[in-house]
Amino acid sequence: MTAYLGDWRGRYRGAALCVVRPATTAAVAAVVRVCAEAGVAMVPQGGNTSLCGAATPGSDGRSVLISLSRMRRVRAIDTLNNTITVEAGCVLQTVQEAAAEAGRLFPLSLAAEGSCQLGGNLSTNAGGVQVLRYGNTRELTLGLEVVLPSGEVWDGLRALRKDNTGYDLKHLFIGAEGTLGIITAAVLKLFPKPRSTATAWLAIASPALAVRLLAELQAQFGASLTACELVSEQALDLVRKHLPGAHPSVSASPWHLLIELSGSSDEAALREALTSFLAAALDQRMLGDALLAQSIEQARCLWALRENIGEAQKIEGQSIKHDVSLPISRLPEFVERADRALLLAYPEIRIVTFGHIGDGNLHYNQSTSAAGENAAFLAAQPEVNRIVHDLVHELGGSISAEHGIGQLKRVELLRYKSPVEIEMMRAIKRTLDPQGLMNPGKVL
Amino acid sequence: MTAYLGDWRGRYRGAALCVVRPATTAAVAAVVRVCAEAGVAMVPQGGNTSLCGAATPGSDGRSVLISLSRMRRVRAIDTLNNTITVEAGCVLQTVQEAAAEAGRLFPLSLAAEGSCQLGGNLSTNAGGVQVLRYGNTRELTLGLEVVLPSGEVWDGLRALRKDNTGYDLKHLFIGAEGTLGIITAAVLKLFPKPRSTATAWLAIASPALAVRLLAELQAQFGASLTACELVSEQALDLVRKHLPGAHPSVSASPWHLLIELSGSSDEAALREALTSFLAAALDQRMLGDALLAQSIEQARCLWALRENIGEAQKIEGQSIKHDVSLPISRLPEFVERADRALLLAYPEIRIVTFGHIGDGNLHYNQSTSAAGENAAFLAAQPEVNRIVHDLVHELGGSISAEHGIGQLKRVELLRYKSPVEIEMMRAIKRTLDPQGLMNPGKVL
Ligand SMILES: Cc1cc2nc3c(=O)[nH]c(=O)nc-3n(C[C@H](O)[C@H](O)[C@H](O)COP(=O)(O)OP(=O)(O)OC[C@H]3O[C@@H](n4cnc5c(N)ncnc54)[C@H](O)[C@@H]3O)c2cc1C
Ligand SMILES: Cc1cc2nc3c(=O)[nH]c(=O)nc-3n(C[C@H](O)[C@H](O)[C@H](O)COP(=O)(O)OP(=O)(O)OC[C@H]3O[C@@H](n4cnc5c(N)ncnc54)[C@H](O)[C@@H]3O)c2cc1C
Repeated sequence: MTAYLGDWRGRYRGAALCVVRPATTAAVAAVVRVCAEAGVAMVPQGGNTSLCGAATPGSDGRSVLISLSRMRRVRAIDTLNNTITVEAGCVLQTVQEAAAEAGRLFPLSLAAEGSCQLGGNLSTNAGGVQVLRYGNTRELTLGLEVVLPSGEVWDGLRALRKDNTGYDLKHLFIGAEGTLGIITAAVLKLFPKPRSTATAWLAIASPALAVRLLAELQAQFGASLTACELVSEQALDLVRKHLPGAHPSVSASPWHLLIELSGSSDEAALREALTSFLAAALDQRMLGDALLAQSIEQARCLWALRENIGEAQKIEGQSIKHDVSLPISRLPEFVERADRALLLAYPEIRIVTFGHIGDGNLHYNQSTSAAGENAAFLAAQPEVNRIVHDLVHELGGSISAEHGIGQLKRVELLRYKSPVEIEMMRAIKRTLDPQGLMNPGKVL
Repeated sequence: MTAYLGDWRGRYRGAALCVVRPATTAAVAAVVRVCAEAGVAMVPQGGNTSLCGAATPGSDGRSVLISLSRMRRVRAIDTLNNTITVEAGCVLQTVQEAAAEAGRLFPLSLAAEGSCQLGGNLSTNAGGVQVLRYGNTRELTLGLEVVLPSGEVWDGLRALRKDNTGYDLKHLFIGAEGTLGIITAAVLKLFPKPRSTATAWLAIASPALAVRLLAELQAQFGASLTACELVSEQALDLVRKHLPGAHPSVSASPWHLLIELSGSSDEAALREALTSFLAAALDQRMLGDALLAQSIEQARCLWALRENIGEAQKIEGQSIKHDVSLPISRLPEFVERADRALLLAYPEIRIVTFGHIGDGNLHYNQSTSAAGENAAFLAAQPEVNRIVHDLVHELGGSISAEHGIGQLKRVELLRYKSPVEIEMMRAIKRTLDPQGLMNPGKVL
């Protein structure tokens, strides 16, 4: 059972009575019914890539781990309705490929896509790099099939873009991290494949300029702006150091912006429009430099610079990670004030900042360079969290933009949510899972 | 109190202890607290344009009607974050105008926009003509402020595009038709103003061709396809008859499609792309005829043809209305089979079909031409509903795509929802509103 009982980051290790791997909705329901009757807790697990210990059982060894990995059928694709019906255990990449084969795009895309599963994506409301244009997993979902904590099956597998017949229950299960039931299947939206893409790497002086540039890009390109990622020089340095490979050489700059346009216009027109936009921005000194990818291969390399940050950080050593979001207008103030406060408290730390700035979402991570000191620094996580999260809260932000709460942020959640909201969440939990058997110790 | 106690269609008339018009969130909370303590029912009301009697109190006269119409401040606009914070009583058109003044688009748009209010739009999850591109009211909402049935205030006014900190409670209140609490304010998404628009009216032979054309339009134009409306010749005839005004003359055809492209490319390029698309579609005999609007004024007139259908129908006389949605791929089968079954049962009826085909949403209405006979036909509503709704259900559709349940479809809801789903809805209702005081007799 070892592989199921530890988390991806290696921070949690749990125990379980057993691991069950049902292959059908009926089998999941049967397992849940037995557990419910016996009063045994259940931990649903998908690809086990959670970054907050959400899929790792507690250490008491008294729960059953339910892996959805054998429920991996694509049940249907409807190209006229632009929908795909998949089972929870489908690996994200498989869904992307099935959509592509049918001439469509399933836009959810994140670095764990080779192993995370749709059920996990739904239960964490996963984000990724194309949220700016296509939304989070929640916005990509039309219907769900769920095994409730009682073992009853709710068939909410509707493939409709409009349905105002009472409370929209699917939204309770999306993002609930397995605490309200087990998702067994979903109807997801598909999109036309973009006909053209243009990718550019921009050197910029500050987050404030990044936010201004984002606004201009949106005004100019509307829905064609499909990604806008911020990368700090420190983040890029880690990639250069640990994954030197075939990276395109981009100019040194305190900050970088990776942008992608895609859409229905033809490629030449898109590139031309972007070129003249960038020329004007250079003229106005909003940019230091701009590199427009000349081929799909070069675009891929630019994306690798961004996507390898996580891996490079892992090689460098452990760090204290924050996955925060803010109103986009407050991002510059956040970075400035958080950096200042942290450097005052911990003069020796390195701050690695990057993220989906188009969604107001920053990955904001800290470590020290020397390994020995780093262990001591990591022990200061509660104080570091306090500085960062208090400021996020003050500026109207979220302490978990895309990764969820799991075990990692359960106490933080209590600190920042109002008692009214916490009580509503608890009331919902008590209503749907009166025995408290679904993924105990997570979220609430 | 008269104006508050009847509905827009003139089908319901209720009674109330009094009408209160609080001007602040604190005042709403105070009213709700008093009612909760006294065990008195409450009916929230916005612009009172509900088409299913959702805002009309029952006839027992024992509830308090709470009108939100004095809560009409635009609290904030943040152009960098592309958000607007408005109070529930803001008229939709006011919000559109406030956005436009700030150089942004608030895309929710429907024929009642001059009088419906944001609180009503949120509580009915209103749709309208731009859902294809921008989504329903639900998808346009980032945060809510709600007075709960206890009188407590939930401040969920977050302006974030990503926030995975526990259950996403706002989705419970959106579309709940006032049965779970009173929405007092919301944070809504804004979009860049489109830089160009192209509008065309197409003559087509059948719904099946309309669905094929829709798919081709989406493949070609992606997010630039912002509206796609189906109109039957009978629907158009009513407009020609009752509102002859300055309509552009469009060719007779069994079916028509009104399409709108808008986006970030320049207008000439957009029109050129559409022209060549339409030429190719004509060549392939997917269209009978196409009229591309040559001016904003002409585009407005084409839209008036579509938007006046509701008004023309009202002049013609009462009808049995259905607001259904289907997977887009099933629309042609639905129209064919429903038409056939209805004409078999009621050979004398006229069927008026139109709607947001891009969202799978049809308004599907029946009446007879002769006024005397029509009264008898209207009495057959239960049987007519049965034919239409049973088929909708069989094809995986919804019996209320955008208008909600209100009082009108409460019994229908019980017929088509699974017991598991109804019981979940009831459990949520009991949890949030244990006394059952919020808008009783609606939805559940
Ligand atoms: C390298 C890397 C990059 C990442 N990048 C991103 C990113 O860009 N954006 C982002 O949002 N996340 C990211 N993540 C986090 C993670 O991949 C996502 O949260 C993903 O959605 C989790 O899917 P999973 O199948 O691995 O779920 P798991 O880790 O197995 O489970 C996650 C949670 O969902 C529950 N769960 C799983 N399946 C079900 C089910 N069928 N029914 C009910 N509950 C269920 C579990 O109990 C647990 O609470 C990344 C992770 C890694 C390792
Ligand atoms: C001519 C016409 C055209 C229409 N076109 C469309 C269309 O294209 N698409 C569409 O979706 N609808 C349409 N509608 C229906 C209607 O306009 C919408 O449902 C609208 O959103 C209702 O808003 P309202 O402010 O009038 O709400 P009301 O009619 O006042 O109330 C509707 C429901 O919401 C509740 N409610 C109102 N305010 C609050 C609040 N602050 N908190 C909690 N509950 C509240 C009420 O109790 C009631 O249940 C149309 C109506 C008309 C008359």
